[in-house]
Amino acid sequence: MTSLPHIDNLIAPRSVAVIGASDDVTRIGGRPIAAMLKAGYEGRILPVNPKRDTVQGLRCYSSVDDLPEVPDAALIAVPAKLVAETIEALGRKGCTAATLFSAGFAEVGAEGEAAQRELVELAREHGMRLLGPNTLGVYNVDIGYYGTFSSSLDTGHPFPGNIGIASQSGAFGAHLGALARDRGLGCSILITTGNEADITVAEAIRWMAESDTTDVICAYMEAINDAPALLAALDAARAAGKPVLALKSGRSAVGARAAASHTASLTGDAVVADAVLSDHGAIILRDPETMMDIAYAASKKVFPAHHSLGVITVSGGAGIVASDEAERVGLPMPPMPDAAQAKLKALLPYASPVNPLDCTAQALNDPSLLESFTQAALEEGGYGAVLCFLTYVAGSDAMSEVILKAMVPLRRAYPDRIIAFCALGDPEILRQYDDAGILIFNDPCRAVRALDAILRLGGARDKDARPALPSHGPVILPATSPDEAQAKTLLTTAGICAAPEQAVSSAEEAVTAAAAFGYPVVMKILSPEIVHKSDIGAVKLDIQDADAVRTAYGDILAATAKHAPEATVTGVLVAKQLSGGVECLMGINRDPTFGPVGVFGLGGIFVELLNDVAVRACPFDPETARDMILSIRSAAILQGARGTAPADIDALSHMLSRLSVFAAGAGERLASVDLNPVLAMPSGQGAYALDAVIELTPHEDP
Amino acid sequence: MTSLPHIDNLIAPRSVAVIGASDDVTRIGGRPIAAMLKAGYEGRILPVNPKRDTVQGLRCYSSVDDLPEVPDAALIAVPAKLVAETIEALGRKGCTAATLFSAGFAEVGAEGEAAQRELVELAREHGMRLLGPNTLGVYNVDIGYYGTFSSSLDTGHPFPGNIGIASQSGAFGAHLGALARDRGLGCSILITTGNEADITVAEAIRWMAESDTTDVICAYMEAINDAPALLAALDAARAAGKPVLALKSGRSAVGARAAASHTASLTGDAVVADAVLSDHGAIILRDPETMMDIAYAASKKVFPAHHSLGVITVSGGAGIVASDEAERVGLPMPPMPDAAQAKLKALLPYASPVNPLDCTAQALNDPSLLESFTQAALEEGGYGAVLCFLTYVAGSDAMSEVILKAMVPLRRAYPDRIIAFCALGDPEILRQYDDAGILIFNDPCRAVRALDAILRLGGARDKDARPALPSHGPVILPATSPDEAQAKTLLTTAGICAAPEQAVSSAEEAVTAAAAFGYPVVMKILSPEIVHKSDIGAVKLDIQDADAVRTAYGDILAATAKHAPEATVTGVLVAKQLSGGVECLMGINRDPTFGPVGVFGLGGIFVELLNDVAVRACPFDPETARDMILSIRSAAILQGARGTAPADIDALSHMLSRLSVFAAGAGERLASVDLNPVLAMPSGQGAYALDAVIELTPHEDP
Repeated sequence: MTSLPHIDNLIAPRSVAVIGASDDVTRIGGRPIAAMLKAGYEGRILPVNPKRDTVQGLRCYSSVDDLPEVPDAALIAVPAKLVAETIEALGRKGCTAATLFSAGFAEVGAEGEAAQRELVELAREHGMRLLGPNTLGVYNVDIGYYGTFSSSLDTGHPFPGNIGIASQSGAFGAHLGALARDRGLGCSILITTGNEADITVAEAIRWMAESDTTDVICAYMEAINDAPALLAALDAARAAGKPVLALKSGRSAVGARAAASHTASLTGDAVVADAVLSDHGAIILRDPETMMDIAYAASKKVFPAHHSLGVITVSGGAGIVASDEAERVGLPMPPMPDAAQAKLKALLPYASPVNPLDCTAQALNDPSLLESFTQAALEEGGYGAVLCFLTYVAGSDAMSEVILKAMVPLRRAYPDRIIAFCALGDPEILRQYDDAGILIFNDPCRAVRALDAILRLGGARDKDARPALPSHGPVILPATSPDEAQAKTLLTTAGICAAPEQAVSSAEEAVTAAAAFGYPVVMKILSPEIVHKSDIGAVKLDIQDADAVRTAYGDILAATAKHAPEATVTGVLVAKQLSGGVECLMGINRDPTFGPVGVFGLGGIFVELLNDVAVRACPFDPETARDMILSIRSAAILQGARGTAPADIDALSHMLSRLSVFAAGAGERLASVDLNPVLAMPSGQGAYALDAVIELTPHEDP
Repeated sequence: MTSLPHIDNLIAPRSVAVIGASDDVTRIGGRPIAAMLKAGYEGRILPVNPKRDTVQGLRCYSSVDDLPEVPDAALIAVPAKLVAETIEALGRKGCTAATLFSAGFAEVGAEGEAAQRELVELAREHGMRLLGPNTLGVYNVDIGYYGTFSSSLDTGHPFPGNIGIASQSGAFGAHLGALARDRGLGCSILITTGNEADITVAEAIRWMAESDTTDVICAYMEAINDAPALLAALDAARAAGKPVLALKSGRSAVGARAAASHTASLTGDAVVADAVLSDHGAIILRDPETMMDIAYAASKKVFPAHHSLGVITVSGGAGIVASDEAERVGLPMPPMPDAAQAKLKALLPYASPVNPLDCTAQALNDPSLLESFTQAALEEGGYGAVLCFLTYVAGSDAMSEVILKAMVPLRRAYPDRIIAFCALGDPEILRQYDDAGILIFNDPCRAVRALDAILRLGGARDKDARPALPSHGPVILPATSPDEAQAKTLLTTAGICAAPEQAVSSAEEAVTAAAAFGYPVVMKILSPEIVHKSDIGAVKLDIQDADAVRTAYGDILAATAKHAPEATVTGVLVAKQLSGGVECLMGINRDPTFGPVGVFGLGGIFVELLNDVAVRACPFDPETARDMILSIRSAAILQGARGTAPADIDALSHMLSRLSVFAAGAGERLASVDLNPVLAMPSGQGAYALDAVIELTPHEDP
C-alpha cells in the first residue's frame, strides 16, 4: 500500500473525467457537466461514454484509456457493478482522486459492504483516494468545480465565500448549502462523504482547516467513523483559528434513565460526543438554522476577547426580550459604568443608559443619539459585541443612509468588536450594512444566540495552555476482574486514595485491623463476583468495638454463604468509617467511539433521577477535572451550599484526573471503573473512594 | 361614571378625527393620514388643525367643535399639555374613543402619572375610552384604518389576514407586525397599548377573541396591569378556539436562588406568570420568531386531536435531526404499524418505513413514493401532523408541479391533519404549497417546534371539564399571625391534615398526650414569634418514653427562655412522630399580580438548590394539583423511584387543592403559608403537615 495522497485533487482539480457522462442534464452523469459549464469551470471537463462522441457540446471519450491526459479527478456515475473496473482503469491511467456517485454498496447490506471494501483496496493499490460511494459529491465555487449531481443547483448556484460544509449526508449537506445560498451567505466548499469508504468528514474538516478558501467549517455527522482523525482535524481547525460548527445527529434518548447505579448507564453516546467534540473546540449545534446564524457571524472573522454584550434599542420592550435571552444562554450584559451613564443621561434625559441602553424612539429624530450610545457602549462599556435593535427603522430608505453614516466610522474605529443590528426590511438595503461589516439578524433572540457562540470562541482563544497530565507509570492489569481490595490497590498505585483499610481472613485479624484504624469501622465481604454487596447483607456499617467486629465477621460470612453460595470469597475488608463528607461518584465507561470516558456526579438521586453528570474523554488534566466537577448542576452542594463546609474539590479534581490517566493507560481490556461512593471530605481533608469495582474483559486466548 | 363603552369604535371606526393633523408625512400628525390615504381607508378622515385649511389634500377643521360630525374615533397628536383640553372638547362633541399618541405622562415620572390619571377621569366623565397615552396606535388592515404613526409602514403595509397582535410596547408590536409582513403572513390587527391608562393588552386580546377578523392572537406584555381581565380574556379566546401566543418579557433572574426555606423566595414573578397564563391556555414564548412560526401554523385553523408527528424525508440525516428535536421538545413520534411498514417496504425495499420514514432520493425519480408514504403516515400512522423534509427539491420549478399534484388530494382527504414541508427555494413556488394548505418552513427544527405547539393545543381542546373545587366554608382569620397549633387548627378546618398532636402546658399533660399517640413523639415550643424553632433547640425528636417527655419539656422551655426571652410562649406541642414517608413542601405565596399562588416541591436540596417547584394561582382543583405534583423534575421520587413504596399522591393532591381553596378564601390578609415538611406517607396512608407557619398582615386600623 502506498501512502495516501492528499485530497487536493479531489476538491480542486484542474481537470475532471466524468465516467458515465450524459447529455441529459437531469441525470447523474449529466448534472455535474451542466453545472460546470454554467459556472465556467476553470479546468478541463473530460466526458467518458462509449456510446457518444460529444456530451453537452464537449468532446466525449469512449473509455478511460482513451483520455488524452491524466485527469486530476474522476466522477464515477456508472452502475455499481461497473465501478470496480472503472477504478481499475482510472488507477492504470494514474488518476489519484475519484468521487463515487454510484450507490448499492455498504448501505444495502453485507454484500455491498464487501464490494465496498474491495473498492478501497483496489484504489489503495493505485494510490487513489475515494469519496463515497453513495455520495452527492463536492463543489468548489471559487474555481467553478461542481463534482456533484445535487438538484439543489436547480434553484440556483451557491455564492463564493469563506464558509465550508462537510457532511456525511448528501441531501442534508446540500440543504445546508441551499440554506446558506438562500440567505445570501458565501459558501465555496461543500464536501459530502456518503458511505465514507475512504474519505471521512474528519478529513474534509482537516482539508478546510488547512485551506485558504475556508474560514468557517460547518460539519454534519451521523456516525463518527474515525474518532482520532476527527479530533486531530478539530485541533488543526482550532490552531488555524477556524471555528467548527458541528451538528451530530442521532442523539440518544435523553429521557431514558436507568435507575441502576452503574456509571455505564449514565452516559449516552451523544453526551459523550458533545463533551469530546466541545473539548476539542467544536461548537455543538442542534439545528441547521442556528448553524447558519453562527457561520454567518463567524464569517466576518472578528472574535472579540470579551464575552459580554451591550444592547442598544429604540424600544424598551425589545431590549428586555434580548436581555432575557442573554441571561438564558449565559451571555453577560454588565451595566455601563456610572460616568458613562451620566454622560448619556445628559444627552437624553429620558434614556435608560444602563444595559440594555434604551435611546428611545427619539433616536429616529436624532440619529446622532444612536451613534453616541453605540460609541459609549464600545468605548466605556467595553462589550465584546453591541447589538442594536433597529427593526424596520434600519430597513427604510430614508433612515438607512443616516444610520450608515453614523455607524461606519464606529465599525472602523473598533475593528476587534462586533456591531450587529436586529433589522427588518428590503434585503438590498440590509445588505449595505452587511457590506459595511455590520452583522444583520432579523430576530433579537437569534442574534443573541449567535453572538454568544462567537463571543465564547473569542474567550476560549485566550485560555492558557492546559497544565500537564499527572505523571504515571505503566498500568498492569490482572488476568480477571479484581475484587474490591485488589481494585483499590491497583488504583492506589495510580494515586487514587481509598479509606484506610485492610483485607483480613479471620475475626481476630479484623479486630487488630479495626483497633489500628480506630472505631467506627466498616466491614464487607471480598469477592470479585459480588458487586452489590449490601443487597445480600454482606456489608456492616458503624461497627463500634471489638465484639461488634467479631459478630460482623460471622454475620457477613453467613450472609454470603446463604445468598451467594457459589461466589469465590477472598476475605473480609475492614475499613475506617469516614463521615462528614459529601458522597460523590466517579467512574470510567468505555465509549465505542472515543474509548475510555471519565464520569463524575454526586451520589444518590442526583445521578439516578437527574442524570446530573459530567463526562470527558480520558486522559484529562486536573484543571479539566475541576471544570467537570463544577459544571454539574448540583456543584453548589460541594461548594458548601447547604451550610456544610466546602468539600475538598482540589482532591476530587486530582483524583478524577488520575483516574482518567489510569484508564487511558490501562488499554482496551478496562471495561469500566466505578468508585461509588467517593467521599469528598471538607476542604483540605482529601477525597476517598469507599468502594471500587473494576471490570476487565478477560484476556483473549493467544 | 358611565359604564365603559366597547372599543369597537377605536379599532374599526367609520370616521376618524386627527387632532394635530400635519401635511408632513413624516410627522406624528401626518403619518396616519398618509397611510390611510395610501390604503384607501373606508371611513372618513377629519383633520383638525387651527393653522390649516387642508391637510394632505383633505378639508381641515380648525377645532374639534367645528367638526361636521361626531367622529367614531380620534387620534390625538398634540403636545402633552394640550391633551386634556382636546379630550374635553372631544367628549363634549360626543366622541367615545381616542388614541393618545402624545408622550410625557406616566413614563416620565410622578407628575406625568398624575396628569395621566386626570385624563382617564376626564375621559370617563364623557364615557370615552382611551388608548395610550404614549402609544403607537392601532391598525386594522381590512378597512384600511391606520390609527398609527409607526414608521414600519415606510417599508410596506401589512397584508390582511387572521393574525392579530396586541402589544404593550409600540416598537415591539410594530416589529412583530413587520416580521409577519416580511414573511408574507396576513395580520390585519395591531393594537399597541402604551401606558395603558385605560385600555390594556387584556382588553385588546378580549376584543380579538370576540372579533371575526382575528383567529390567532399574538400578545406582548411587560407588566400585567389587570390580571383578572387578562385571565378572562384568555378564557374567552380559549372558548372561541383562538390560540393566544404570549411573550412576557422581564423574566426574573432564573439563576438567583435564595437558600432560605421560605416558599416566598421560590417563585419568581415570571415563573408565576408563565404558570398562570399557561393554565388559562396561553402558549408562552420567549422570542418573536417562534411566535410568528406558531402564529403561521395556527392561522390555518387546523388543530389535530393527536399530539404525534410523522416525518417523511428524502434524506436520512434530516429525518434524524427532526427526530432529535421532536424528542427534545416532547413531541411523540410513534413508529408506523408493522403492516404499513411492510407495505412500504414492498414499494421501496431500501426505504426505512418506521418513523422517520425515509423514502430516499428515489422519491425524486418517482414522486408517487412521496404520495404513498405520506398517505400511509396519515392513514395508518394516524399522526396529527406529517412533516416532509423536501428541502430545495420542493422549491424547484420542475418538481413543484409534480409534488403539488401528489399532495393536494391528500391535503383534501385529511382536512383535520397538518401537512407541512421543510422546503427551500423561490418564495413564489413555495407559496403555491401554502396556498394549497401545506405549511412551509425552511428549517426542520423550527417546523418541529411550531407543530409541537399546535398539536399540544389540539390535545388540550379535548380535555374534559375540570372537576369541581373542594367545597369549603368561610375562612375566619385571627387578628394576628397564629402559632403553630393555631395554624394547624385553622388548616384542619380547611381539610388539611396535620400529624396527631396536642398543645400542652405542663410536663404531665405532655406525658398523657404522648401515651395516647404512642411513642415516639416529637415536642416543640409553641410561639407565634419563633419561626425557626429548631435553630434555638426548641424542637426535640425521637422521644421514646415518659421520662424523655419530661426532660424534653424542661429543655424546650429552658432553650426558649435562653434564646428567645422576649417571645410569647403559648405552650408546648406534642405530636406523634411519623416516619417512612417522603418529605415534601407546600405553601402559599402572595404574587403581586395574581394574588395567592400555591407552591409544591420536595423538601431539602430539591427546592433549595434545584428550585424544582410547581406553582399555580389559587384556587385549583385536585386534578390540577396532581398535575403540579407530577410536573416537578423529582416527581419520580414520589412514584417510588428509589425502591421505596410510592407515596400517597392522591392525598397530597387533595391537600394541595384544599390549601389553594383556603388561600383563595382567606383574602388579602393572608401573606403566606408554609407547610414544611409535609410527610407524604406510602400510598393509601395519607399526607400530613408536620409544621405549619401562617403569616398574616395585621388588621388595619379602622
